[in-house]
Amino acid sequence: MAFVENAWYVAGWSRDFSQELVTRTIVDQDIVLFRKSSSEIVALADCCPHRLLPLSKGKRVGDTVQCGYHGMTFDGTGQCVRVPGQDNLPSNAKVRTFAVVEQNGIVWVWMGDKTQADPTTIFSLPQFADPNWHAHFGDALKIDAYYLNVAENLVDPAHVSFVHPTTLGNAASEDVPVEVSTDGDVITAWRWIRNAPPVGFFQQFGNFSGHVDRWHYYHLHLPSTAVIDFGSANSADSIREQDRDSGVRIFAIHFVTPVDSDRTIDYWMHVRNTATNDDSASELMDTLLRKAFHEDVEILEAIHRSEKRSTHRQQVRIAIDKGPNAYRKRINDLLQVEATAA
Amino acid sequence: MAFVENAWYVAGWSRDFSQELVTRTIVDQDIVLFRKSSSEIVALADCCPHRLLPLSKGKRVGDTVQCGYHGMTFDGTGQCVRVPGQDNLPSNAKVRTFAVVEQNGIVWVWMGDKTQADPTTIFSLPQFADPNWHAHFGDALKIDAYYLNVAENLVDPAHVSFVHPTTLGNAASEDVPVEVSTDGDVITAWRWIRNAPPVGFFQQFGNFSGHVDRWHYYHLHLPSTAVIDFGSANSADSIREQDRDSGVRIFAIHFVTPVDSDRTIDYWMHVRNTATNDDSASELMDTLLRKAFHEDVEILEAIHRSEKRSTHRQQVRIAIDKGPNAYRKRINDLLQVEATAA
Amino acid sequence: MAFVENAWYVAGWSRDFSQELVTRTIVDQDIVLFRKSSSEIVALADCCPHRLLPLSKGKRVGDTVQCGYHGMTFDGTGQCVRVPGQDNLPSNAKVRTFAVVEQNGIVWVWMGDKTQADPTTIFSLPQFADPNWHAHFGDALKIDAYYLNVAENLVDPAHVSFVHPTTLGNAASEDVPVEVSTDGDVITAWRWIRNAPPVGFFQQFGNFSGHVDRWHYYHLHLPSTAVIDFGSANSADSIREQDRDSGVRIFAIHFVTPVDSDRTIDYWMHVRNTATNDDSASELMDTLLRKAFHEDVEILEAIHRSEKRSTHRQQVRIAIDKGPNAYRKRINDLLQVEATAA
Repeated sequence: MAFVENAWYVAGWSRDFSQELVTRTIVDQDIVLFRKSSSEIVALADCCPHRLLPLSKGKRVGDTVQCGYHGMTFDGTGQCVRVPGQDNLPSNAKVRTFAVVEQNGIVWVWMGDKTQADPTTIFSLPQFADPNWHAHFGDALKIDAYYLNVAENLVDPAHVSFVHPTTLGNAASEDVPVEVSTDGDVITAWRWIRNAPPVGFFQQFGNFSGHVDRWHYYHLHLPSTAVIDFGSANSADSIREQDRDSGVRIFAIHFVTPVDSDRTIDYWMHVRNTATNDDSASELMDTLLRKAFHEDVEILEAIHRSEKRSTHRQQVRIAIDKGPNAYRKRINDLLQVEATAA
Repeated sequence: MAFVENAWYVAGWSRDFSQELVTRTIVDQDIVLFRKSSSEIVALADCCPHRLLPLSKGKRVGDTVQCGYHGMTFDGTGQCVRVPGQDNLPSNAKVRTFAVVEQNGIVWVWMGDKTQADPTTIFSLPQFADPNWHAHFGDALKIDAYYLNVAENLVDPAHVSFVHPTTLGNAASEDVPVEVSTDGDVITAWRWIRNAPPVGFFQQFGNFSGHVDRWHYYHLHLPSTAVIDFGSANSADSIREQDRDSGVRIFAIHFVTPVDSDRTIDYWMHVRNTATNDDSASELMDTLLRKAFHEDVEILEAIHRSEKRSTHRQQVRIAIDKGPNAYRKRINDLLQVEATAA
Repeated sequence: MAFVENAWYVAGWSRDFSQELVTRTIVDQDIVLFRKSSSEIVALADCCPHRLLPLSKGKRVGDTVQCGYHGMTFDGTGQCVRVPGQDNLPSNAKVRTFAVVEQNGIVWVWMGDKTQADPTTIFSLPQFADPNWHAHFGDALKIDAYYLNVAENLVDPAHVSFVHPTTLGNAASEDVPVEVSTDGDVITAWRWIRNAPPVGFFQQFGNFSGHVDRWHYYHLHLPSTAVIDFGSANSADSIREQDRDSGVRIFAIHFVTPVDSDRTIDYWMHVRNTATNDDSASELMDTLLRKAFHEDVEILEAIHRSEKRSTHRQQVRIAIDKGPNAYRKRINDLLQVEATAA
């Protein structure tokens, strides 16, 4: 399986990183990360070039990392600065490093050609900086599935009625068609379910007494960051698309990080315009989202096992595939560009 | 590994199937089975043609099954009857179905070309319908081995002295030669051990005070149903072959269902002419047979691991291989026929 | 992965073998061993030539082993002496046997061409027979790594400072260069760390009050027996190389037996010139060595996993590789000789 390498992927939340050595596997490459004394995070290939021991089996010494086998030591630029038992340093004694950016409490790593790493292209959301909104970091959800299937699921509102019938969806939306559009590197699939009972989630959160208008906007930013804008408002208010802030509105954000061909980590968080000072609301929302996301995991892992047994990925195409298909086509274009450059 | 596909294989006992979705893997194909409201059992390929999710991850809705990802729904003929979010049904939206026959409390599935599925060829035994006999259903025994080795073991009376020395055999039979004959699709290997102490099994069941004449007839019906007719009678009675009903006579029946190249399920039951109204006798017999069959499992799984490490299956041929070799030759003929037709 | 087959490998200690059937896998070949009534140990390929069942699933009968499937029986020379149910013995009914030598409480097996098996080449140590020394048998340490990496680690004193900083080494030795020499089939790497605090091991064993001179001599006998001569003496005594017996001196011996490409067993023991009549000293030493050797296991298994992910084994060569590189070259020469002969 190929991966888009020239991209920023999330390696975790800021709180996950300290002066301890932390390991990650992203696009099938093992890296080790740690904070220098300046608190800057550095990322090195997790492999000593001498005998291939993961550097994470060694230890941090000041702003360097020392291999646990023979003590070869590398600084944050990947340069070898010490070989015990000899004075000269072999010219090829260096390890690859990766660009790291920490922003809004999120740690991003660029896994491809470092010269193309542009921090200004990193995903952000205006609401991160808006005091009327509250951002809350969730879990690192491990999924035994190929990441493109995980990401496709996040530009596919139609699955909600069947995978999450008691949490995020219900039967009222089963046959509501899905709209799809593309704007630059963002593919959006959305639909409104007007004048229906609130789903489980908004029964708990919205305090609605009657029918609601519910929306789902799935924005999938290439290569694999999804922002799911969903919410509900009293149907009596007949709100317009652009007035979603007047309802209960939540952005569930999924940073989908490919581990390898068979594994993915979904770092998820949410941003909300309700109960912004209420920690117990954050916990309740985590609990509800965790339950829903595990419903996705069961489906995605079953599909992964099934694809590995089968010779073709998909046999029948239906209307609701429009978002996923647009996404897959864009990814293939990116892979093509990288393959040509290599 | 190739499998004979044009054959009826046992998928379980009638009692194993209800309106719940039940899964099986037979000849390396995943199927999902359920009873319709008419109680008829249907079997579909366990794979939605849209995104390959196993249909068993969805749910039964009336006499149809609804996929758990996007709600595509299929009836018992495999035809798609609903695609949520669109009115038209894609012409290629169908799943393969398999012929199912329920007979004598046993559920059979035909895994190959459906036009060749002839229910009149399904294995039966006159004693199933005879009030002087009692049929009792046993377990689904999982064996991590290739099914042909499991079946060969069931046309091989010679192994009994060594694999089952305290249960079904004893030292008295070690050197008694085995007779083999073939009649249509049935290969039979048998021997009589005359005038010897009863083996463990018939010490418990026959209430014999002196020596017995013991017989073992292994009838292997192609492709993989084995009927082991074994019993004992007082040696003083000097019974003839055709008078076996006058002794304590048991048919241990093994329906050997190939799961995949490395796994087999042996659905086993027995039919007996003794203690026909005695449930505790059924339980005791299950206990004894279970113990003996686990002795087989240990040997068969060790051989399977050994064959996977080795480059040849068999190095030395000996006299008692006659039954197994005749069986393997007939199976190879069947595989040849199917390969030629395909 | 290729293995040197024309070599004596340790299969265990004498105490591990009785009339019970014992199995081992050495250079990816399965063998079964047992003592005959004469107490001589025989080793046969653990595979019946009839249906490939491991003979170890059968039982010993006198000085023969009887297969657990159909009772074919083989003597200690590998010759078939019985086929139940028939009088003649097939001419190809034999199993391969392996030369076994028991010496100094250690059981050796020759895995290659039996005609080249020369017992006089088996490793020994004069101290085994010296009453001033005590030999104590340790454990069979299982390591999920390729055996050449395990052996290389045993001609590499430089790793001690980093892998065993609190047990066998300490920071004082980090930059002390390593000397390497070759004498016939023995490659030796060594160094002295003069006038330094005793390491953890000799704090417990030497009862030293001040600084010590510490030595590490790693003698690696082809293909994979390592004798690590290490010890300490009061620095005030300024002992010479040849006077090591006057200090506290220990031979830690590792018999590195390749299981397969991914697994190795290190049978380890030690011989010492201190506390020779003290069983509690043996136990304490086992405890200390066990802790240190598990530090090696963690490193070696991590390297093994890393090598399997990588396309090259080593990228950078440094000074302390001299011993390991000399060893690897000699092993490659041996493999070349065997490949040419085959």
